[in-house]
Amino acid sequence: MPTPRPAAIVFDTFGTVVDWRTSLIADLTAFGQSRRVTADWTGLVDGWRAAYQPSMQRVRSGEVRWAPLDDLHRESLDRLVAEFGITGLSEDDLGHINRGWHRLNPWPDSVPGLIRLKARFIIGPLSNGNVALLVNMAKRAGLPWDMVFGADVFGRYKPDPETYLGVARLLDLEPGQVMMAAAHNGDLAAARKCGLLTAFFPRPAEYGPHQTRDFKADAAWDVVATDIEDLARQLGA
Amino acid sequence: MPTPRPAAIVFDTFGTVVDWRTSLIADLTAFGQSRRVTADWTGLVDGWRAAYQPSMQRVRSGEVRWAPLDDLHRESLDRLVAEFGITGLSEDDLGHINRGWHRLNPWPDSVPGLIRLKARFIIGPLSNGNVALLVNMAKRAGLPWDMVFGADVFGRYKPDPETYLGVARLLDLEPGQVMMAAAHNGDLAAARKCGLLTAFFPRPAEYGPHQTRDFKADAAWDVVATDIEDLARQLGA
Repeated sequence: MPTPRPAAIVFDTFGTVVDWRTSLIADLTAFGQSRRVTADWTGLVDGWRAAYQPSMQRVRSGEVRWAPLDDLHRESLDRLVAEFGITGLSEDDLGHINRGWHRLNPWPDSVPGLIRLKARFIIGPLSNGNVALLVNMAKRAGLPWDMVFGADVFGRYKPDPETYLGVARLLDLEPGQVMMAAAHNGDLAAARKCGLLTAFFPRPAEYGPHQTRDFKADAAWDVVATDIEDLARQLGA
Repeated sequence: MPTPRPAAIVFDTFGTVVDWRTSLIADLTAFGQSRRVTADWTGLVDGWRAAYQPSMQRVRSGEVRWAPLDDLHRESLDRLVAEFGITGLSEDDLGHINRGWHRLNPWPDSVPGLIRLKARFIIGPLSNGNVALLVNMAKRAGLPWDMVFGADVFGRYKPDPETYLGVARLLDLEPGQVMMAAAHNGDLAAARKCGLLTAFFPRPAEYGPHQTRDFKADAAWDVVATDIEDLARQLGA
């Protein structure tokens, strides 16, 4: 199989580029200690992520109007704080916790791999995160994006086709010149339906002990790699 | 006057960050020599830029539907090539010439100034150029943007308020936390009307011998600087 030659590579972000679970558990645990608020922060983080797809599905289906991920995260957080019986948090505290999603740490290969890829390709996140979240994350983590494709650029959440095709439109490329890179087979299946190239690498620790899928490529994606540095190597970057 | 403290600074691009006139004249002259096509390339470039505002005005007014700047540039180019009696250009040639706007060179202070500002602030272009043009330009010129606000992100051309306010919305900032930086007083007047902070520095050579305005600040902008490095210095970056 010849090496695919994309002009641009866009990356799923939560789980693919950054380790949301370890980052948030550490961030909230440290915050709880500094504020002397005791809680099952690990349980809260897992519950928060479990609310992620259902909250976006209400937007995708038209049940509720467009809202950026920061707002969906905050609605879920408010509900979970009550469910977990966490008390003593101010409005500022809740805002800080919610912006924990802006403070996620990259996997060890992410920054070195992206720096290599940036020298040869246009790179950006294509994430259900909003632009503010993704820009703040990139500045803190050193993610060297050329362009940030937040869901609010399109007013749509993946896997709606307007997101994948929107990248091609804004970069003035054919869909087949854009590669979607993700640790999630479902994201790649949706991208391939839109004509994009696809690259998979697994992140088997993404969900900690709760991971049930995406341990390996479920289809013959255009590239299957071990991580982002390996993707760079396979693409000659 | 206290130093304004923006969270983000967005830059007009053509003329403010890059020297479109010198770049295009050199690019097209070299292209003409390599292809043995003789033409008044300087006149073509000046005519092309003269068509810029009228072409966008037809979009702003609703006379024609939304089209990205690459398409407006191409329509103007086709007309000018005929008017200047230039012959022997293939479709590929015309595409290459049109993408000359993707190959503009920065003013000498632009890259060092932006690198300094990026360490303290979110930075991006807010340009009537489209995302593809601005991303290609940034990669070639080394402009270290955090986010690229092309006009096609908003489907609007400056000075429509949706552009200035769209930056604040996508960055989840108040308009007063966003600074517009431009070498054009009119751009800053429109940004200020939307509540943005403003920074001016002159580019007296932008239009070569045809410059008639913007030699100095026409109003008490929040910062008046000599160039982007001086802007960085004044903002403590």
